[in-house]
Amino acid sequence: MKIIKNESLSAIKTQIRQQTAQTTNPQVAISVANIISDVRQRGDAALRDYSVRFDGVALNNLKVSELDIDSAIAQVPDEVIAALKKAAANITSFHQLEVAQSFEDTTRSGVIRGTKVTPLSAVGIYVPGGTAAYPSSVLMNAIPAKIAGVANIVMVTPPQPDGLNPAVLAAAKIAGVDNIYQIGGAQAIAALAYGTETVPQVDKITGPGNAYVAAAKRAVYGQVDIDMIAGPSEIGILADDTARAEDVAADLLSQAEHDVNARAILITDSSNLATAVSAAVEQQLETLPREAIARSAIDKNGYIYLVDTIDDMIELMNAVAPEHLEIQLANAYDYMAKIQNAGSVFLGKYASEPLGDYLAGPNHILPTGGTARFSSALGVWDFQKRIQYLQYNAAALAEDANDVTALARIEGLEGHARAIESRGK
Amino acid sequence: MKIIKNESLSAIKTQIRQQTAQTTNPQVAISVANIISDVRQRGDAALRDYSVRFDGVALNNLKVSELDIDSAIAQVPDEVIAALKKAAANITSFHQLEVAQSFEDTTRSGVIRGTKVTPLSAVGIYVPGGTAAYPSSVLMNAIPAKIAGVANIVMVTPPQPDGLNPAVLAAAKIAGVDNIYQIGGAQAIAALAYGTETVPQVDKITGPGNAYVAAAKRAVYGQVDIDMIAGPSEIGILADDTARAEDVAADLLSQAEHDVNARAILITDSSNLATAVSAAVEQQLETLPREAIARSAIDKNGYIYLVDTIDDMIELMNAVAPEHLEIQLANAYDYMAKIQNAGSVFLGKYASEPLGDYLAGPNHILPTGGTARFSSALGVWDFQKRIQYLQYNAAALAEDANDVTALARIEGLEGHARAIESRGK
Repeated sequence: MKIIKNESLSAIKTQIRQQTAQTTNPQVAISVANIISDVRQRGDAALRDYSVRFDGVALNNLKVSELDIDSAIAQVPDEVIAALKKAAANITSFHQLEVAQSFEDTTRSGVIRGTKVTPLSAVGIYVPGGTAAYPSSVLMNAIPAKIAGVANIVMVTPPQPDGLNPAVLAAAKIAGVDNIYQIGGAQAIAALAYGTETVPQVDKITGPGNAYVAAAKRAVYGQVDIDMIAGPSEIGILADDTARAEDVAADLLSQAEHDVNARAILITDSSNLATAVSAAVEQQLETLPREAIARSAIDKNGYIYLVDTIDDMIELMNAVAPEHLEIQLANAYDYMAKIQNAGSVFLGKYASEPLGDYLAGPNHILPTGGTARFSSALGVWDFQKRIQYLQYNAAALAEDANDVTALARIEGLEGHARAIESRGK
Repeated sequence: MKIIKNESLSAIKTQIRQQTAQTTNPQVAISVANIISDVRQRGDAALRDYSVRFDGVALNNLKVSELDIDSAIAQVPDEVIAALKKAAANITSFHQLEVAQSFEDTTRSGVIRGTKVTPLSAVGIYVPGGTAAYPSSVLMNAIPAKIAGVANIVMVTPPQPDGLNPAVLAAAKIAGVDNIYQIGGAQAIAALAYGTETVPQVDKITGPGNAYVAAAKRAVYGQVDIDMIAGPSEIGILADDTARAEDVAADLLSQAEHDVNARAILITDSSNLATAVSAAVEQQLETLPREAIARSAIDKNGYIYLVDTIDDMIELMNAVAPEHLEIQLANAYDYMAKIQNAGSVFLGKYASEPLGDYLAGPNHILPTGGTARFSSALGVWDFQKRIQYLQYNAAALAEDANDVTALARIEGLEGHARAIESRGK
């Protein structure tokens, strides 16, 4: 791994900003616009055509039957089912703490002001196919929606020539997904956003996907809500002399193995650790099954920054705003107060990042590409909305009428003022 | 107003869906892309050029000085200042009820799981110029950000040949805006998203604007967060025989006067009310200063739907998902339980919609175009983010290790499994 030392903080920050510069491919956006338009016009027929063309599968049924789901699940090893159930229980207990509550304020006589928190009616979850079909992501998307009270949780996943991933179907059943359709790509996003004869229209679409899925989510944003435009995985690690180089290296590689564009950054004040981690990464890469992917990521976006103080380390990491942040410093917990920008933080040497990917309960669908500056982990709040309400009686309206009409008239909106005054007549 | 009766609910729903179909102008998107690119490259110089070209103003200073703010405020009538302060107090007391709280779960020995709620660092508020310069919107954008704890609230508003709107500057001061820049249009959005020599980069941009501002917000979404792509104003009213036709008509017109594309919909089970409201709208239009705008809106998107039952009325209104919903039914409060989709609800005959626009406290920046299906009023939550965190000790990790590695390996992510196992070595 590249070790960067003796650089100014501002030079490092400039380098960090360039790492997160976003690029979009206009050609993908054009293809996606055509697919969306086609699905809106031809519905299920378009979905079947794209399934043949992109997935190589001629489908009988877009909807996956209960029978197919149950027979697939029977193939999943018992220890995987047990692990999925344990993960689901932890995800549930964590996300129950996120539920937003309705409130009502009646402190002023004659006035009721409130907010009713209520679930979205229907949401769509995209689950990639092939090697990126992750049962853990099914749990992370569906369980918060279930806790929010969403009545119809719809999962879509690309059809596969030799059948859908059994563990993905098992996770869907454990998480309480209501309906599963075997459709993928931009065409699946279009179907969820606009509905077809078979696929119901939803209010929000969540879940990761390839460049076409991401472009389609961007295109339908506004017609439905979306969670985010997810980028490649990222890990940032703050570590000092108390950290074990082997652990740090393994955690960097756990994200690097996701994607050739993944990003793995260590910031440390220890020259010894920097050298040892760089060596350990090289050594561990040699036996990693996904070595080629991880090596590309480390070569491209793997950096070790060596700086003077822990304060400098934290300042730089807040500029990175990583999806995953590990703090392998003595008294790690105490540094949470200084963390401004990160999706999910892992404290101390035992909270290895994959614990959060799979089992501990916090969500693993997280802001990437520096967007942790302004966005958060997927949560129950993503599946709830808030409806404000207001009631006044005649006396309260009379007290406030002159203030309302003064403001309406200074804005040139006489009709607003007259609506208030109509009540006095 | 058009009165639609003897139609099936499904025919009415189809008509409602067509009313909300969104359109975008590709030419605007191309112009906006060029402006954004120019501002990124040339910074302040580009902002000054666009100010001359689009606003007809050659600026000395992009930043508005404290002196200019204070001398403008001195021109605002006392009763307007008093009304703004009363509005600010009500908005503050309502939005304080929205603050999300951090939480921490330590129920399992050796494990800490939590979420730290923290404000965004900097946000930008767009305030339109000319006749759409609304001091009330300044309060509605800035106060929730202030309550969230945002350290730098930046306001932008287009320069005006005869100076900025004094009431807008007064509202900014009352709401606690930190910095004001006189820039507008897509160039202002670009400056906030990327920063220039003078204008700071922010994390989120909120506030309404014209088609260029909306297209620019869509284009920078991902680089920064945005509140929403706001459409024309809307009001939906559910009313029965107990409602006064003059009040209903005045409230319909209070939204119709905003925009020729505004939408005003009454759904009722009373034939008498339908006829009387239609006549009252015509009569009130005749003396309304913004008659031309309101008449265009009513002609284009003004509908009275006459149906048989209150249940049918509510079902249709949930399909409308209006920005503003008035319930002028006997026992209005009791119907809140059945409202699924609306931005803000006004209950009973005295809660006229302009109360919410100006004074009562709930936010007036609301989802339009049917997006109340999945989105909510602007609130404190828009300016807060959540950072998850997790700590495990060695014993807890040992208990969970096999479950994590089982799931990692079924997903083909050996590096994830090895990161967990590294701790045991």
